[in-house]
Amino acid sequence: MSAVAESVATPATRLMADALRMLAIDAVEAAKSGHPGMPLGMAEIAVALWDRHLKHNPRNPVWPDRDRFVLSNGHGSMLLYGLLHLTGYDLPIDELKRFRQLHSKTPGHPEVGVTPGVETTTGPLGQGLANAVGMALAEALLAREFNRPGHPIVDHRTYVFAGDGCLMEGISHEAASLAGTLKLDKLTVLYDDNGISIDGHVAQWFSDDTPARFAACGWHVVRDVDGHDVDAVDRALRAARAAGRPTLICCRTVIGKGSPSKAGTHDVHGTPLGADEVANTRRALGWPHPPFAMPAEIRTHWDASERGAAAEADWNKRFEAYRRHYPHEAAEFERRTQGTLPAQWRDAVRAMVRDADCAAETIATRKASQQAIAVLARSLPELLGGSADLTGSNLTNWKGAVDVHADDSGLQGGNYLHYGVREFGMSAVMNGIALHRGHIPFGGTFLTFSDYSRNALRMAALMKTRSIFVFTHDSIGLGEDGPTHQSVEHAACLRLIPGLDVWRPCDTVETARAWVSAVERDGPSCLLLSRQNLPFAARSGEQIDAIERGGYVLRDWPDASAHTRVILIATGSEVSLALDAVEPLAEAGIAARVVSMPSTSVFDRQPDAWRDAVLPPGVPRVAVEAGVRAFWRQYVGLEGGVVGIDTFGESAPAAALFEHFNLTVQALVDEARRVAQLAP
Amino acid sequence: MSAVAESVATPATRLMADALRMLAIDAVEAAKSGHPGMPLGMAEIAVALWDRHLKHNPRNPVWPDRDRFVLSNGHGSMLLYGLLHLTGYDLPIDELKRFRQLHSKTPGHPEVGVTPGVETTTGPLGQGLANAVGMALAEALLAREFNRPGHPIVDHRTYVFAGDGCLMEGISHEAASLAGTLKLDKLTVLYDDNGISIDGHVAQWFSDDTPARFAACGWHVVRDVDGHDVDAVDRALRAARAAGRPTLICCRTVIGKGSPSKAGTHDVHGTPLGADEVANTRRALGWPHPPFAMPAEIRTHWDASERGAAAEADWNKRFEAYRRHYPHEAAEFERRTQGTLPAQWRDAVRAMVRDADCAAETIATRKASQQAIAVLARSLPELLGGSADLTGSNLTNWKGAVDVHADDSGLQGGNYLHYGVREFGMSAVMNGIALHRGHIPFGGTFLTFSDYSRNALRMAALMKTRSIFVFTHDSIGLGEDGPTHQSVEHAACLRLIPGLDVWRPCDTVETARAWVSAVERDGPSCLLLSRQNLPFAARSGEQIDAIERGGYVLRDWPDASAHTRVILIATGSEVSLALDAVEPLAEAGIAARVVSMPSTSVFDRQPDAWRDAVLPPGVPRVAVEAGVRAFWRQYVGLEGGVVGIDTFGESAPAAALFEHFNLTVQALVDEARRVAQLAP
Repeated sequence: MSAVAESVATPATRLMADALRMLAIDAVEAAKSGHPGMPLGMAEIAVALWDRHLKHNPRNPVWPDRDRFVLSNGHGSMLLYGLLHLTGYDLPIDELKRFRQLHSKTPGHPEVGVTPGVETTTGPLGQGLANAVGMALAEALLAREFNRPGHPIVDHRTYVFAGDGCLMEGISHEAASLAGTLKLDKLTVLYDDNGISIDGHVAQWFSDDTPARFAACGWHVVRDVDGHDVDAVDRALRAARAAGRPTLICCRTVIGKGSPSKAGTHDVHGTPLGADEVANTRRALGWPHPPFAMPAEIRTHWDASERGAAAEADWNKRFEAYRRHYPHEAAEFERRTQGTLPAQWRDAVRAMVRDADCAAETIATRKASQQAIAVLARSLPELLGGSADLTGSNLTNWKGAVDVHADDSGLQGGNYLHYGVREFGMSAVMNGIALHRGHIPFGGTFLTFSDYSRNALRMAALMKTRSIFVFTHDSIGLGEDGPTHQSVEHAACLRLIPGLDVWRPCDTVETARAWVSAVERDGPSCLLLSRQNLPFAARSGEQIDAIERGGYVLRDWPDASAHTRVILIATGSEVSLALDAVEPLAEAGIAARVVSMPSTSVFDRQPDAWRDAVLPPGVPRVAVEAGVRAFWRQYVGLEGGVVGIDTFGESAPAAALFEHFNLTVQALVDEARRVAQLAP
Repeated sequence: MSAVAESVATPATRLMADALRMLAIDAVEAAKSGHPGMPLGMAEIAVALWDRHLKHNPRNPVWPDRDRFVLSNGHGSMLLYGLLHLTGYDLPIDELKRFRQLHSKTPGHPEVGVTPGVETTTGPLGQGLANAVGMALAEALLAREFNRPGHPIVDHRTYVFAGDGCLMEGISHEAASLAGTLKLDKLTVLYDDNGISIDGHVAQWFSDDTPARFAACGWHVVRDVDGHDVDAVDRALRAARAAGRPTLICCRTVIGKGSPSKAGTHDVHGTPLGADEVANTRRALGWPHPPFAMPAEIRTHWDASERGAAAEADWNKRFEAYRRHYPHEAAEFERRTQGTLPAQWRDAVRAMVRDADCAAETIATRKASQQAIAVLARSLPELLGGSADLTGSNLTNWKGAVDVHADDSGLQGGNYLHYGVREFGMSAVMNGIALHRGHIPFGGTFLTFSDYSRNALRMAALMKTRSIFVFTHDSIGLGEDGPTHQSVEHAACLRLIPGLDVWRPCDTVETARAWVSAVERDGPSCLLLSRQNLPFAARSGEQIDAIERGGYVLRDWPDASAHTRVILIATGSEVSLALDAVEPLAEAGIAARVVSMPSTSVFDRQPDAWRDAVLPPGVPRVAVEAGVRAFWRQYVGLEGGVVGIDTFGESAPAAALFEHFNLTVQALVDEARRVAQLAP
């Protein structure tokens, strides 16, 4: 008699759950690495959701109206791989045998883009839950935008598995609070309440009344569900559909269930069971099959290919009916969910950049960004803006922005989110919105508080989501708020995240171009913007076109034919210092070049020829940026100069601070003279 | 008739509250910058707490048994400056007139170390609350350790002002959950529930039932207190004393109260009222005095100098009685709260390092760290360890560690905290523990998840707290968990935070020395430790002594007299690659030096003579580290080499990954040969 059989409804569901269990422990055992506890504990919950509720088509993992499934407790990846394999995704058993091996489709934690059917990369706890809030939000907004009476072409749900770890993380509060406020009724979280985390029984460090906590955030909560009773979980999932609010289903489970000697202990969380205990588990479950062998009967039970194909076929039929009635909307829906830009995009970009150039305004780049958003929003209905409660400072809103909010009848559509003071939650929600497809999310906060969301920025880069992070007040230039708010190391530290494009534009035109690059990119971008006004820099058409290369020659002084004796590399608010330094240098007999470098990573990706033309080898260089100096050694070398700040800022008016920290034209001239004279 | 008079108990309290109001708006007006809304809204709450409850001595801001006060909504700094000025701290009115000016004692947000009476630096929202949890925890643990029957020498409370912003931040959940679980009954939070945040009325983005949420975390909650009624707040504060749990007092307030036309709007949050509205407010409050003038009567009401001196004198008397009965404990209490190390410290350090050297073990540096902790804990009862639910992985526990936990009778003492999966909360709580004094906190997580706590690490550096962050699993060397868990950019990005010392030791001896430096430092340190075993490196006594300089010559090969043609700079797990590269290089006719650089910031602080001796100018250099390469250009220049990783990692066994990413002896040899041959 199986240890779990008594609480499972039918022989079929028992077998289905045990199939997940055995795949998980056999794969972990083969890898000699992994987390068996969660798959063993959540197997019945997985059966209830995946066999009875989840709408998906294993043959087409990108069907737009599929339900989204997020494994927020991503260490239990083998549960998901088992589900994908058994339901019919392109994930053959050989990939499961290669769990956690180089270049397999079954990495240690689920990775979107690597494994078909994986919706988001999880592992860093709590973020999957926030991603799911973003997906549910995207669904709700698309439904309100595209559905028409009798044509509910957007109508899917978002499901999350989450454990104690996810719910201890602060981001779970941010995500839950926002989901409750916005009444995301198609979001359902299945909480694996097993009372165990890595350090042991959680009671000693996690004594929350979790149901009461989520109820306080406006959630529908189903308490005390036996997580090993498929029918009980099934009933709770049905109840969730009618709740009108997001739902938390609290499933009492036994971690490692099925393992005779390790179930219910933290030993089973993240360590292979060992050959003996695997054998014992096999016996206890009554599972006679060798590792990775799966009887046809069980495969038949699990296979969702036909059901899924039929569901999508039905939707396709309904979508064609929608297309007949609403051809424009249908085309637009397809464009949006495929993530392509509108036909007139390039024209709009050209016009925007030209207008910015003609206007030649001296304004803060945060203001320039607001102007760019306003223009882009006219061509891009998919822009979904927002701020972590700093709208009036980040200037992330625009005329035509409509607040997303909920009233008694539920979520009301719009294109602007007041995320609240929730930087991490905002960023992870944005990643979820981007992963869902249909919108291009952007969200603002102060650059310093990018720290709060840093791992979500990293995850955006790892997942290559088109998330646009607007970080204003980007240096000591913010003035009186002082060192807690003044970025010093942030620009450098964001640039060091692989795959993250960071732009620090110097004026209106560079800001507009940075926005274009961010929108066009298949990956995340950060825009670092000034609080204070920055002077407009005149450029040729060629120079304007060069901005998209990340670094380019903005000035050769006295002229392009002079023998350049020093190159000044600058970004953002410090470009004007460099431009102001060339005349004094010329008077000292030193011909200088100003290179504006709004994006170092984009510049680094240019061909050698471009980079060598902009920064000819052998010419001494000085970098200037209101931030840590060490970053710039990769461009100026040991002999070059860097004018920057290696300490925290101070509270004072901005002008006083630039003087105090010696970020001045004079300091730059002195440094340029020094390095120019050093050169042979 | 004053706009607020009707709800204030007595003329004296009315005047006291209005004094705070006027100081705040006049200072903000003078600075033309600042946040008037909160001081106007919390003035009566401040009167209730500071005049009727707070135990403090303005003449001695470091009296160990003072109550701690934390302004978690730090943008309301002028409220605190007003309180400190009026109650008698060394903060003259001239400093208030210089609010937010360079080198004043009244920076934009409160900064510990700058202004007497400021307990922690706040502004980054939510962290003050978590700091306060750390302070309350430190108090509770010290009380359990040092108090004796009839001698309650540690007996003070921790008070927090917090706003909507703090409570929206996820860290508030981590802090509240931990405080509730640990039953920190001397912690009281006064919540400024004004319904407004920067974007406007919070209902649209923050609809939590906050009282229910805190009750779910085990807090005592006082609901619906009129925050403009001093007696009502006073009653709630009394109730808090008897609660046996942490208390949240929910104070309904009007932001900007007193300003006739801006009260209750978000316009008053962070912008000066303007001269006209200041004048209107003056009139409405019936405040006839010019800016910064304070009638003697009000000064008398507020002055807490005598009361405070008497309270401390009483405590001093009681402490002397304690000393007579418990001379050893009294001396130890003084040492601990002064933050000095024990007399036998240097001997213990010498013995520990010598033992590590003699043992010559090849173990993971996380294991070496655990051994060091075990030795240090014998001399340092102030060590207070912990982990964010990764104890068995971080190896932050030791024999002799006793779990801090709560039972029915409240908090039980110990020296080890299971912080739960709360990296940010843990780090900010550690900062609070360090600020309180009496303990040296350390806490562990995986290096990658330092991202979650990044702003708390920055705050530790800004505040110079002796917090020790133990970050294990420091590279792709962690193997199968994959890119979500593998640090690539983290070492570099931590090193770029000003004032943060980062150590990445290569073996047992460097790990022991890194621990010593961290303990001895008047500021925060991060220890980056390997999951995998690292070979022991033999050293002379001189070399062992040199570790504390952050970078030193570990090997000259074939010998010290050879003409070094290339320098290999390495850290942590890559030092062994460098050591293994010197023989192949010698065979190729290239004499090489290996520089071990466990801490770049410490090395950077050494005199030129040391740095030039270790890295003689002109000798080509190659750096090797399993992380982003750009960081190392500051040491190797443009012509040097860097062997590193500029992309995310992969899920696979560690050995396969080092091969895959070309972090091998051969790659290092090739690069060293290349740069050595380039040199003139």
